[in-house]
Amino acid sequence: MRTVKLTKETKDELLGNLLKRNPGSYTEYENTVNEIISNVRENGDKALFDYTLKFDKFDVNKETINVTRQEIEEAYKELSDDFVEVMKKSAENIRVFHEKQKRNTWIDTKEDGSILGQRILPIEISGVYVPGGKAAYPSSVLMNVVPAKVAGVERIVMCTPPSKDGKVNAGTLVAADIAGVNEIYKVGGAQAIAAMAFGTDSVPKVDKITGPGNIFVALAKKACFGHVSIDSIAGPSEILVLTDETANPRYVAADLLSQAEHDELASSILITTSQNIADKVSKEIDEFLKTLSRSEIIKKSLENYGYIFVADNMDDAIDAANAVASEHLEIITKNPFETMTKIKNAGAIFLGEYSSEPLGDYFAGPNHILPTNRTARFFSPLSVDDFIKKTSIISYSKEGLYKVHNGIELFAKKEGLTAHANSIAVRFENCK
Amino acid sequence: MRTVKLTKETKDELLGNLLKRNPGSYTEYENTVNEIISNVRENGDKALFDYTLKFDKFDVNKETINVTRQEIEEAYKELSDDFVEVMKKSAENIRVFHEKQKRNTWIDTKEDGSILGQRILPIEISGVYVPGGKAAYPSSVLMNVVPAKVAGVERIVMCTPPSKDGKVNAGTLVAADIAGVNEIYKVGGAQAIAAMAFGTDSVPKVDKITGPGNIFVALAKKACFGHVSIDSIAGPSEILVLTDETANPRYVAADLLSQAEHDELASSILITTSQNIADKVSKEIDEFLKTLSRSEIIKKSLENYGYIFVADNMDDAIDAANAVASEHLEIITKNPFETMTKIKNAGAIFLGEYSSEPLGDYFAGPNHILPTNRTARFFSPLSVDDFIKKTSIISYSKEGLYKVHNGIELFAKKEGLTAHANSIAVRFENCK
Repeated sequence: MRTVKLTKETKDELLGNLLKRNPGSYTEYENTVNEIISNVRENGDKALFDYTLKFDKFDVNKETINVTRQEIEEAYKELSDDFVEVMKKSAENIRVFHEKQKRNTWIDTKEDGSILGQRILPIEISGVYVPGGKAAYPSSVLMNVVPAKVAGVERIVMCTPPSKDGKVNAGTLVAADIAGVNEIYKVGGAQAIAAMAFGTDSVPKVDKITGPGNIFVALAKKACFGHVSIDSIAGPSEILVLTDETANPRYVAADLLSQAEHDELASSILITTSQNIADKVSKEIDEFLKTLSRSEIIKKSLENYGYIFVADNMDDAIDAANAVASEHLEIITKNPFETMTKIKNAGAIFLGEYSSEPLGDYFAGPNHILPTNRTARFFSPLSVDDFIKKTSIISYSKEGLYKVHNGIELFAKKEGLTAHANSIAVRFENCK
Repeated sequence: MRTVKLTKETKDELLGNLLKRNPGSYTEYENTVNEIISNVRENGDKALFDYTLKFDKFDVNKETINVTRQEIEEAYKELSDDFVEVMKKSAENIRVFHEKQKRNTWIDTKEDGSILGQRILPIEISGVYVPGGKAAYPSSVLMNVVPAKVAGVERIVMCTPPSKDGKVNAGTLVAADIAGVNEIYKVGGAQAIAAMAFGTDSVPKVDKITGPGNIFVALAKKACFGHVSIDSIAGPSEILVLTDETANPRYVAADLLSQAEHDELASSILITTSQNIADKVSKEIDEFLKTLSRSEIIKKSLENYGYIFVADNMDDAIDAANAVASEHLEIITKNPFETMTKIKNAGAIFLGEYSSEPLGDYFAGPNHILPTNRTARFFSPLSVDDFIKKTSIISYSKEGLYKVHNGIELFAKKEGLTAHANSIAVRFENCK
C-alpha cells in the first residue's frame, strides 16, 4: 500500500482519484434503462415477465412471482440456528437504535386561537430492492427494512431477482422475514424498479424505493425519482482511519482490509500523524494479505484507491478527513471524542480501538446504508426519517387573521397575485 | 367550473387528468440540459458567461457577476417601507416556526462503556435558485433561505438570471438580504444549476440546491442529483378544499381562485358533501371572475384542472382527498381537527374558515415550498431537515465488543466477507 506525505497536492490527487469512481455519464446504459422503464410502464406485467425471462432466465408468471410462506420456511431450514439467532439479535439492535429516531407531531398554540404545527406520518407502502446471487447480503435486508417498520410503514414489499430455477437466496428470505417484509416478488433489475415506481398487476406501486443494486438498478432509481422517493445512490464502499501514535497498527490494518475486500473500487485510507504507525500498518497489511481469502480483490482495491498518508499534525489530518467525507470514519486517537468534535463530514464515526467498522456493518444498530463518494457532506445514513412524511398544520382564528390581514394582502399584491389578496380580503369585507 | 358527483370513476378520471401535468419524459429538453451541464463542468466560467450572454442577453464577467452591496441598498430604496416591513415580519414568523424543527445530537450509553448516537450538523454551503422576471417571488426567497439559516448553514449563495441590462429584481434582492443570503450571482437557467453543482472560478460548488425554476432548471437539478443534494422537483400549484354544509361558499370560492391564478396548469378542487355548497361556490366563482385581474389565467386553469365534486358522505370525500394528496388542503368542516385525523396525504393542511391558503403562502411561518402532483404521499415541506446531515456515532468498549464478537464474526463469514470477520477476531486473538 502506498505511503505518502499529506500535502495540499497529495490531498487533491486523492480527491480527484476517488471521484473517478463516479463517472459523470452512463449514456450507453441510460438509454437501455429508459427503454425498460417505458416498457414496464406501458405494458406492466407482460414487460416485467419478459425481462425476467430474458435477464434471469426464469419464466415467471402471475402465480409464481410471489415468494410463498413455504419457501420462507424452507429457507429457515437451510440456515444454521446460530446464524438465524445472530440475525435476530442484529435486527433487535437495529430496531432499538432506530426507535430513538422517531419524532412526534407537534403543535404550537397562541392565545389568540392560532395553531401551527408539524404532523408526522409514515409513508403507506415502501419497496426494497435486494440484489441476487453473490451480492445478496442479509445484513443489508435488515438495514433497509427495519427502519421502515419502526417508522410505522404498513406494507413493505421486496423485489429480488430469482435464479434460473426460480429460487431466492435463503439468507435474503430469512432476513426479510425477521425484519418484517410483507410481500416478496421474484423480479430484479431496472424492470423491478419500474414495477415498484409505476405499479403493475402483480407488483404494487410504492411510495419509496430503497436498497442497493448494479448500475442498471441505480440508474432506474434515479430516472424514477419524483414519481417515487428513493434513497441516495450508493457508490463503492470506503473507510478512512484517522490515528495519532497511540493506535494499534494491527487493528488499523485489519480494518482497512475489511473495506478493501468489498470490491476493486472500494477505498481504504489511513491518515496518521505518526510515521511509525504508517510503517507498522503497512507491514501488518502485507502479513494479513498472506492469509485472507479475498486477497486478490483486496490487492486490486488497495492498488487503485488505498493510501497511507502521513500528516504533519492532527489539524491537517482532520482537514483531509473532512474533505474526503468518508462513508466510514474510524478515529483511533488518544481522545477520540475530542477529535470527533472537529469532524464535519462522515457517514458513520467509529471511536476508539474496539469500535471496528464491521461492528457497525452487522450488529451495533446504527444503519450501515451510508452516504458514499464524498456525499456525506449533504446526505445522511438511512433512517426512520426516510420513511415518514411531514405535513404543516395551519389554523388561524378570526382574531389572529384580522391582526395581520393588511400585511398579507399587501405582500400578495406586490407579487401581482390579486386573487391571493382577495381570498384574505373577502374574510373581512363586512368589517370595514 | 364543472360540478360532478364523486364516484370511483370520476375520482379516477381526476387522478389521471392531474397526472397529465407531469409528462413522463422531456427528452427534447434533456439533451439540451445535459449539454449545458457538460459544458459548464468542463469550461467553467467561460461556458457560464457565454450562456448568460446567449440566454439573458447580458455580457456578464468575473467582475459583474456578483450583486454588490450598493445594488442591494438601491433595491431597498425602490420598495415601499410597508412592503419591506411585511417581508421582515414574514421572515421572522418563518424563522420562529422553523426553529422548532431543529434537532439535537443525541447519544445513548450502556454501562459496559458502549455509546451509540446520532450527530446533527448543518451542511456547509447551500445554493438557492431564484427565477427572474415575473416569476421572481420575494416570498419564495424567504421560504428557501430562512430554513437554511435556522439550520446553521454558514454560507448561502443565490443564483438568479439578470435582465439584459444586468439588473436583478429589487424584491428578490431585499428578500435575500432580509433572509441572510451571503452572495448573489447574476446567472440563471440550467447553467446556474451546473455552476452550483460543480463549481466554477466565480460560483462556489454547493452541497444542496433548492428553489423553483422552469423546465430547464428542474431537469438540471434532477441531472445533478447525487453530485449535490436537491429539494423535490416542484410541479404546478394545487388546492383542495374539503367541506361539509357549514362552509362559507364565498370564502371557499375565493380560496379556489387564489391557486388557479398561478398558471394554467394549476389545479383547484372542491370536494363537498353538500350540493347546496357546491352550487353556491360555483356562483361565487362566476361573480369573482368578473373582477379579478388574472381572470384569463384563472378561467383556463379552472377549465383544465378545476373540479367541484359532490360526495355522498365525508368518508368518500376524505378518501378522494387522500388519493389526490394535494399540495394545499383546506378543511372547512364543523370540526376540522377531527376531520384532519383521517387525512393521510397533504403538503400543508389549513383548518377552519379563517385559515385561508395565502396566509400560509406569505405569512404564518410554515414553509410554502410543498410537495405537488401527488408526491405528498412521500415528500414533505421544505424544512430545517433539508439543510442538515446526520452522522452515526459508534463507540464500543473492549468489554462491549467481547460479549458479541463471535456473532459478528459468524455473520461476516456467512456473507463471505472474511476480512470483516478478521477485523473483529484480531482484537481478541490473545484472549483465547
